[in-house]
Amino acid sequence: MLAVTILGNNSAIPAHGRHPTAQVITTQEDLLLFDCGEGTQIQILQYKIKRSRINHIFISHLHGDHYFGLIGLLSSFALLGRIQPLHVYGPAPLQGLLETQFRLSDTVLPYQLSFHPIVEDGLLLDTRHYSVSCFSTRHRIECRGFLVCEKKKRRKVLAEKASALGIAHTDFSRLQDGEDIGLPDGTIILNTDVTTAGDPPKKYAFAADTLYDPDLANHFKDADLLYHEATYPGALIEKAAERYHSTSIQAAEIALKAQVKQLLIGHFSAKFESIELFEEEAKTVFPNASAAREGVTYLV
Amino acid sequence: MLAVTILGNNSAIPAHGRHPTAQVITTQEDLLLFDCGEGTQIQILQYKIKRSRINHIFISHLHGDHYFGLIGLLSSFALLGRIQPLHVYGPAPLQGLLETQFRLSDTVLPYQLSFHPIVEDGLLLDTRHYSVSCFSTRHRIECRGFLVCEKKKRRKVLAEKASALGIAHTDFSRLQDGEDIGLPDGTIILNTDVTTAGDPPKKYAFAADTLYDPDLANHFKDADLLYHEATYPGALIEKAAERYHSTSIQAAEIALKAQVKQLLIGHFSAKFESIELFEEEAKTVFPNASAAREGVTYLV
Repeated sequence: MLAVTILGNNSAIPAHGRHPTAQVITTQEDLLLFDCGEGTQIQILQYKIKRSRINHIFISHLHGDHYFGLIGLLSSFALLGRIQPLHVYGPAPLQGLLETQFRLSDTVLPYQLSFHPIVEDGLLLDTRHYSVSCFSTRHRIECRGFLVCEKKKRRKVLAEKASALGIAHTDFSRLQDGEDIGLPDGTIILNTDVTTAGDPPKKYAFAADTLYDPDLANHFKDADLLYHEATYPGALIEKAAERYHSTSIQAAEIALKAQVKQLLIGHFSAKFESIELFEEEAKTVFPNASAAREGVTYLV
Repeated sequence: MLAVTILGNNSAIPAHGRHPTAQVITTQEDLLLFDCGEGTQIQILQYKIKRSRINHIFISHLHGDHYFGLIGLLSSFALLGRIQPLHVYGPAPLQGLLETQFRLSDTVLPYQLSFHPIVEDGLLLDTRHYSVSCFSTRHRIECRGFLVCEKKKRRKVLAEKASALGIAHTDFSRLQDGEDIGLPDGTIILNTDVTTAGDPPKKYAFAADTLYDPDLANHFKDADLLYHEATYPGALIEKAAERYHSTSIQAAEIALKAQVKQLLIGHFSAKFESIELFEEEAKTVFPNASAAREGVTYLV
């Protein structure tokens, strides 16, 4: 189970009912938050996200539309009496900023906040079911995208068949791990006779803010879902380059190059009231493209 | 003309569609913003406040629900290409915090931002039409409320009568200033014969966050409108004291003591889905009381 719920699909300035970047990743274990623009905690309420299940927050870079909502969310966690630990991963200066704000408001957190400064590309988090790693994108300031990779999934037991062959339920876990089972009478039941392969592990790529850069496609290779920014429509290719952003067409070209299964575009310029154009343009290059819509959950 | 538009009436955590503290004061000259909780810029959009007319922002204290929206608003002003100067008044450490965030996002403001650290009670701003001063409230951290006092208004000319007596239009401005007018034939027209008194100047008091403190009433004396926090209903008087907040009953008692004309209560605890109870309670002590409602403009 891997899914992405969009809380904000706009760039820079909130407009047209659209909010700055934030998205919730639902994993088999818990929820992750990627970026946290202003108002994220209000969007979390609005879309009934179980905030207590958010254990890890990743901040791509220190442009305000990607992190101004973080201090408010962390403060609200405190006011709500959260006790389970929380991990925040982001550019190193963010730590001091948060600490200063807690000190000025005389806030003592009732939960343990672990800040993990992102200082290089690579693995950030490794759990039983998934890992999160980061890579540098090409933006005006230091910026990183994130990859969520599910671990190989356990095999699925054909329960009726296994039971009929005399395998005890208590051995099903070994079957899920791929083991053959020896019965009391000495018979060996081959694992492949009573299991099928687990669901393929999924891969989600969040490209954060970036200039068009074909080399980035290497990170997205074969992703099940790629979220790529598309701040501008195709015609504004020069403006996009100037501002270290991408167009809808460029996002789709990257998706094509990386051979991802599905593309989601977002971070739309506030100048555009409608986001239909972005989606239409992306589809001309990469048909399985959608404009990210707030409140919608996309299965990876 | 003095009016208050409520952008946020909730305390601490956004809830039930209510937002943290922010209010826009409309003066004869421009707009002031009192406090700027997270999401204020979104509320400004929502209620179609002309953001370019906001020239002065006052921050009462550094609890997040009163200022976490400031950096976002200032950044958006920059992105929108604002050029007219902006003045921010607030606790001194706020300045460094803003500067750090601008530096980290590599933001160069296209407008002049003047930060005025509030270090003592007294006058903060004095214009042709109004003044803003501040006073200390009793809160968990340093906190200040604000008073907006209109200047004495010019007299109103009884135009027909003045013209009939031979006073030239070009002398009307002198009449507004209270002067008598000498006609070419030597006749003196007494000012009071051709003018009436200007509208009485209005006074608005914003009590910010505070423990119940009858001494504060001195600042609110005869205010046309007092906004006083009422985080809790009357029954939670002990909890209110513990947290350096007031109850609806206490807010009303202050209004009564200060003999203000009208009371507005706000900063409601997120625990309460409805704010009716707060209003009903306040009215039992001070009948001309209302619960502040978001998006509503109250004339002072």
